[in-house]
Amino acid sequence: MNDRSDPNLAAIVTTSQGDYRVVVGRGVVDTIGAEMKRTGLAGRAFLIADRALFPDTARLAQEALESGGYETHLLAIPPGEQAKSLDNASRIYDWLGERRAERGDVVVAMGGGVTGDLAGFAAATWLRGVAFVQLPTTLAAMVDASIGGKVAVNLTHGKNLVGAFHQPRLVLSDVDYLDTLPKRELAAGWAEAIKHGLILDHALLETLEREAAGMMTLKGEAAVSAIRRSVAVKAEVVAQDEFETGAARILLNYGHTVGHALEAITGYGEYLHGEAVSVGMMAAAGIATRLDMIGADLVERQQAVLTSYGLPVKAPGASVDDIIDATRSDKKSRGGSVRWVLLESAGKATVRQDVPEEIVREAIAEVVAA
Amino acid sequence: MNDRSDPNLAAIVTTSQGDYRVVVGRGVVDTIGAEMKRTGLAGRAFLIADRALFPDTARLAQEALESGGYETHLLAIPPGEQAKSLDNASRIYDWLGERRAERGDVVVAMGGGVTGDLAGFAAATWLRGVAFVQLPTTLAAMVDASIGGKVAVNLTHGKNLVGAFHQPRLVLSDVDYLDTLPKRELAAGWAEAIKHGLILDHALLETLEREAAGMMTLKGEAAVSAIRRSVAVKAEVVAQDEFETGAARILLNYGHTVGHALEAITGYGEYLHGEAVSVGMMAAAGIATRLDMIGADLVERQQAVLTSYGLPVKAPGASVDDIIDATRSDKKSRGGSVRWVLLESAGKATVRQDVPEEIVREAIAEVVAA
Repeated sequence: MNDRSDPNLAAIVTTSQGDYRVVVGRGVVDTIGAEMKRTGLAGRAFLIADRALFPDTARLAQEALESGGYETHLLAIPPGEQAKSLDNASRIYDWLGERRAERGDVVVAMGGGVTGDLAGFAAATWLRGVAFVQLPTTLAAMVDASIGGKVAVNLTHGKNLVGAFHQPRLVLSDVDYLDTLPKRELAAGWAEAIKHGLILDHALLETLEREAAGMMTLKGEAAVSAIRRSVAVKAEVVAQDEFETGAARILLNYGHTVGHALEAITGYGEYLHGEAVSVGMMAAAGIATRLDMIGADLVERQQAVLTSYGLPVKAPGASVDDIIDATRSDKKSRGGSVRWVLLESAGKATVRQDVPEEIVREAIAEVVAA
Repeated sequence: MNDRSDPNLAAIVTTSQGDYRVVVGRGVVDTIGAEMKRTGLAGRAFLIADRALFPDTARLAQEALESGGYETHLLAIPPGEQAKSLDNASRIYDWLGERRAERGDVVVAMGGGVTGDLAGFAAATWLRGVAFVQLPTTLAAMVDASIGGKVAVNLTHGKNLVGAFHQPRLVLSDVDYLDTLPKRELAAGWAEAIKHGLILDHALLETLEREAAGMMTLKGEAAVSAIRRSVAVKAEVVAQDEFETGAARILLNYGHTVGHALEAITGYGEYLHGEAVSVGMMAAAGIATRLDMIGADLVERQQAVLTSYGLPVKAPGASVDDIIDATRSDKKSRGGSVRWVLLESAGKATVRQDVPEEIVREAIAEVVAA
């Protein structure tokens, strides 16, 4: 784990379950066998991939694992948020059971956040936990979801209600996968990176502002560097607050209170997660400025960077009451009061539980206005 | 956590998820509110109890929680091993979801090992893990299953294939519950205590040999003391090897390789778990004596103590081949070779992976002979 001179090494995440490498670069999937060996993983590989990656992309990953010496079994799971169900976890269990997957075997999740969450939950619970490798293929998963060990499935009562903290043993983000990602999904991924800049890393924010065009075309090294930096920010937060019991990890929820509410009231069909978070960050900025925590200049700056990536900053027509109701049932609430993550400056955020409802209502009304 | 002078305190279990008290005594359920407060548990209590405890026993526990200041919701789950299913976990999730159980709330499992495993698995995964209290009502759960954080559900492919290591925050074993336990179940519980004595604690073994009659009537302090001592043995093993990755925890599987096989081939309907383990310990002793690890005197001594509790030491008519096949698919096997836990002396055990099949076959043939 000492080779910090590896240019593709974005971060080493330090957790109670062990340290792990996050490797970000072009073509890194070809190194998966060597990386897994270096991590000490033996056994067979159970590669669980988003059906959208079949046949070619998934097969190439399987071949990379097999050339690396890992007997590999391959399973397709359906795409989309609705795939994160107990039923699909149960299907994965049956597949693992038929193949007698053992404690020394490895589950490899290949796809976006949905695949990582679902396959990760299966890995967390199969035989009380087997090793787990993330091979994210979307930008949102690379900069955010693949790091930190939060895995889960959804219930009809809400998203991510059933899950675990199960850290991967390795995260391998091959930027080549992003070349074919739809622009809208790419932008939604950058929304999470912009969030990391806004709450914790002013320099990352400045880079993302300055080089928006390059980020969206993925040309050159700028995009890859920004992904690595965003990974490092997330890794640092996870190391500080692995189980979200402290003050650090909650900051990653910037924009997520209204974002989750917006996704919920639109049935998860209208906004990509990053898009909903983009609108949610605008609502949060509206609260912060009303509380005199930040000035109008930062609100405008946030709006400008989001807009430059083609991200929505308003949700015209959504109901203020519906959004407020949905924020109350968000599982992040404690004893009924919502914990708002709010900016103090560019690159610095804090948590406030004392926001008057009137101010929340005004800020939300502003983002739902046509 | 410093009050080691509490006479009911059987052990403090030290784990990566925190330390917890195991309290064993008569009438201790009445202290559940105070014990939970002392442990720092707030929120609401979600009491999940074996249907066989309804209405009276479960209601009394609910009242104890409520007098202790905990708003308490009560759910019945079906009895029997087949209740440990993903379907029942899903029912618990729905129940928690309808009541909006939050991260600060507490799941209390009341019943035998099945209830603890099922409710514990739900607690381990609800919102990625909420606090969990064990209120075991069977002897097997008190001396063994309630301690150590192993929670799981079964699949058609095998038992306990899906689960977690989720330590309870408190274990409260009220010996009064055992007064109405059928004698056969009581004996099956003592089988696990005898196992603890055989593998790790010669003094406990001697007590269980000397006072078998008192143990089975639960009169006086001897039985309560033996339960506490058995708890302490288990607690020590768990502290040494929380995730069963080292050499310590595997020892607890003494008698379980053939025991699990016997349960599996009889469809879990013929033997109580402790009864199957009793037969399995005899098979293991047969292996150990054939390997010249122990003498015939210890085999006879083991048989005598098991018999004095009315436990079976043979499984007449079971098929040697079926048992051997079933041991191979036991999930404790690694790369196909079975890890046998074998005695070296009374109170001392070790693990052997090199046992010749011929010897296994002979020892099993001996216990299935009429």
